[in-house]
Amino acid sequence: MTPPRRKHFGWGREGEAMTAEEEAFALATYRRLFAVEDFATVPVPALADAPLRPPRLTPPAALAAIVSADRHERALHAFGKSYQDTVLGLLNDYASAPDLVAYPRDERDVAAVMDWAGGAGAMLLAFGGGSSVVGGVTVDRARDRPLIALDLAHLDKVREVDPTARAARIEGGVYGPALEAQLKPHGLTLRHFPQSFEYSTLGGWIATRSGGHFASLYTHIDDFVESLRVATPAGMIETRRLPGSGAGPAPERLFLGSEGILGVITEAWMRLQERPRFRADAVLLFADFDAAARGLRALSQAGLHPSNCRILDPQEARNTGAGDGRAAIMVLAFESADHAPDAWMKRALECCADHGGTPEQAAVGAGSAGARWRTAFIRMPYARERMVPRAIITDTFETAITWDRFKAFHEAVTRATGQAIRDATGRAGQVTCRVTHVYPDGPAPYFTFHALGRHGALLAQWRAIKTAASDALIAAGGTITHHHAVGREHRPWYDRERPPLFADALRAAKATLDPTGMLNPGVLIDP
Amino acid sequence: MTPPRRKHFGWGREGEAMTAEEEAFALATYRRLFAVEDFATVPVPALADAPLRPPRLTPPAALAAIVSADRHERALHAFGKSYQDTVLGLLNDYASAPDLVAYPRDERDVAAVMDWAGGAGAMLLAFGGGSSVVGGVTVDRARDRPLIALDLAHLDKVREVDPTARAARIEGGVYGPALEAQLKPHGLTLRHFPQSFEYSTLGGWIATRSGGHFASLYTHIDDFVESLRVATPAGMIETRRLPGSGAGPAPERLFLGSEGILGVITEAWMRLQERPRFRADAVLLFADFDAAARGLRALSQAGLHPSNCRILDPQEARNTGAGDGRAAIMVLAFESADHAPDAWMKRALECCADHGGTPEQAAVGAGSAGARWRTAFIRMPYARERMVPRAIITDTFETAITWDRFKAFHEAVTRATGQAIRDATGRAGQVTCRVTHVYPDGPAPYFTFHALGRHGALLAQWRAIKTAASDALIAAGGTITHHHAVGREHRPWYDRERPPLFADALRAAKATLDPTGMLNPGVLIDP
Repeated sequence: MTPPRRKHFGWGREGEAMTAEEEAFALATYRRLFAVEDFATVPVPALADAPLRPPRLTPPAALAAIVSADRHERALHAFGKSYQDTVLGLLNDYASAPDLVAYPRDERDVAAVMDWAGGAGAMLLAFGGGSSVVGGVTVDRARDRPLIALDLAHLDKVREVDPTARAARIEGGVYGPALEAQLKPHGLTLRHFPQSFEYSTLGGWIATRSGGHFASLYTHIDDFVESLRVATPAGMIETRRLPGSGAGPAPERLFLGSEGILGVITEAWMRLQERPRFRADAVLLFADFDAAARGLRALSQAGLHPSNCRILDPQEARNTGAGDGRAAIMVLAFESADHAPDAWMKRALECCADHGGTPEQAAVGAGSAGARWRTAFIRMPYARERMVPRAIITDTFETAITWDRFKAFHEAVTRATGQAIRDATGRAGQVTCRVTHVYPDGPAPYFTFHALGRHGALLAQWRAIKTAASDALIAAGGTITHHHAVGREHRPWYDRERPPLFADALRAAKATLDPTGMLNPGVLIDP
Repeated sequence: MTPPRRKHFGWGREGEAMTAEEEAFALATYRRLFAVEDFATVPVPALADAPLRPPRLTPPAALAAIVSADRHERALHAFGKSYQDTVLGLLNDYASAPDLVAYPRDERDVAAVMDWAGGAGAMLLAFGGGSSVVGGVTVDRARDRPLIALDLAHLDKVREVDPTARAARIEGGVYGPALEAQLKPHGLTLRHFPQSFEYSTLGGWIATRSGGHFASLYTHIDDFVESLRVATPAGMIETRRLPGSGAGPAPERLFLGSEGILGVITEAWMRLQERPRFRADAVLLFADFDAAARGLRALSQAGLHPSNCRILDPQEARNTGAGDGRAAIMVLAFESADHAPDAWMKRALECCADHGGTPEQAAVGAGSAGARWRTAFIRMPYARERMVPRAIITDTFETAITWDRFKAFHEAVTRATGQAIRDATGRAGQVTCRVTHVYPDGPAPYFTFHALGRHGALLAQWRAIKTAASDALIAAGGTITHHHAVGREHRPWYDRERPPLFADALRAAKATLDPTGMLNPGVLIDP
């Protein structure tokens, strides 16, 4: 049975949406927060009304079978899932829509489409699940070259499984659930579960240095990449399958985070794990976010490597239904395929107790804070398409900072974002924080903000808040992104973060691999 | 008190050498192995007789105070510590000696020397401890540009310590012992202890992706690098101090393994740890190397992360005094500053027991196999200068391979190397193996070979064996180096291992950062 097609506006497939109960909960929260009775709501334009210009190029006969000019396909590939993308969809602004969408069946098709694009002077956008929240797939509307979206959905197979080294050769276009379903009969799992899991792909995770399931140690997809195959306009690159090497700069690391500007990841050997048999879970309450952060620091420096150790500030805990707003919360878990992690959990609880962390009573089970948080986490992406039409501005941004600067950093970013909300919208909003990943030398905080905007000014208001928040991040020493990637929306701050000479080196590497500058222009660097 | 100066030939400082007892043990072993009474020995040429050509350039007045044309200094900087280097020294072949040696006091001096070298059309060799065993500091004799060695010995300070995030800003030229001595008052340690620890530097470790203390998890220096400052001919590069980031390809990773061709690492923020308070040690005996490898695989895939879990084949155990040659040995240890690793060790011993691993009786203390192995390991570098004059060819090489291919790989490499010894020298030698580092998806085996050569043919014989071994490594799917680096001696096989288009990208990056190609030419790529 074929599932319904993806929505061209919003998250997931046609027919999927927030439940009435979820929507009512969110709206009640916003009514309280903004002290309003109801929201001025504008309708979402129909797909039939999307102003798509006629395609400016025609595929060669040999590629005609895999190229589509279908209205729904073009609209679907016009955007990722950022706040800005959603507003543009609501404004019926489809200037970023590709002229055509190509669906390669294999690497040869990928190379053929690249050749065609090169000959036609077109731009080429490698498109995985299209879940970018940073403008990663929204090619600059000002460019006048035709655009082909290269959707890798047919490169969706696990090609080879090595049970001894626990690795698999996997095509780049496979979505999360299909990937795990193919590994399951082997008792293996990649265990990479970003929030976008259902609608993002292996190649996309690698290209964006995606952050996943593990809150510590294996925070990004990076360390799970054993080798890569990358199609570039200059030819194929294949790195050697190795558990480790010291032979020059690691070639995989040039493509990890390359966001589609150097090549298209067609295949990767990925390091896998056995499916966990043992788990230990706890939810801890702390007096406040600072105390939770101190407990988290102790834990992160103890060498215990929990699979989960996320902390939520009291308001964030309340908004997600994980707490009542009076305490900060830590969701803590160890998992293993090899041993019961009792000694690990025992010591972790001691680390937390040193900073006042006390276990919640009903820590495990469907009704627990941890389970409530996980459910809210998975359902969150469905909210945006319902809130934007109501002029609610809600977005997230994430970063990382060393422990010595964390407290001042958190205060500065929260203050700047809150002030920007008041300045841009004329009323108070809300800024909350959790920590999603953690290292011995510092946390990766994740901020969420909520503001009530005004139709007609939404983009400008959002941009003013985003700018103030990003300015504060960079000024206070953080990174513009820990795992959402750079895309186009983070470019100005990435330009300030990354060393100018590194940009020059990257530009030179790109000129070698992509001489016509066809690949995803506008992201990371200007060729 | 100033220590004696470094030897220009051999390991360590003047006055340091193998003890008579160590030498007698080694020679007795070789007499038995090669069935000879004694060894034809040639004398080591005196420093005064080293044929150094007159320097081809003169420093500008502003740099005169930090530049030396001293005979000992030039001879010391002519070579690393590879087998080939040692033979060349014995042959009194100093064609690779630099014209001058510069000792910058700070980053400004580094930049000034680069400017001078650029203007003078000279080559510049960043020199740390000079412990390369792969020709990393031996600039191609055929080149006709003058050569300046840039010795970073004065950049030897820990500049800043952050006890909260547990990190320090450290200059690139600091040697291992001086680095740890400066960290010790803070209760912190880098815990990076390569065999060359005493005579290698932080910048050298980073430039070569050095492998250190930890047999699992933190196998290379890579993950301890928080940020870098790199002086390039095009200017300074400074990356941001962050615990993690997903903002584009990681800039640090371009310089990790760059072997001095892109810039000079002047400073790094390094991730540190508290000094361990708890330890658990064991030595396990296995029926043979295969059984030990199966035990090691089980351990490596259990998620226990031992600090040490090295396996030695029976002959290697015997040669290093760690065993009697009847069993393969595993040296196993857990360490922690936070908790007693009893549960970890208990489970590790179970993993080993599943493959017949039984604990040695006297596992701990000065007389144990582990202690004997550690002592032999630290003293090994002193042997070469005593064996080469006796025409003994002994060298090591290391690699990595996934578990599924390990058994066939080990057999193929051992067979090819043994055959090459017979072909090149006309008599049998010995090839042994240990595993020094391990990953869930595969081990990093480390081979040692011993052959009896002939004066006048030593280099050709060594090269024939090295070539056969390296051909076998690459043909069987390994990497040409896991942690010794590429240098000039591994170049032909690195060229086969690394994707050609990655070489092109690296070449383009180098042309941007080092437009005149002054930095360490001949290593990794040809500009």
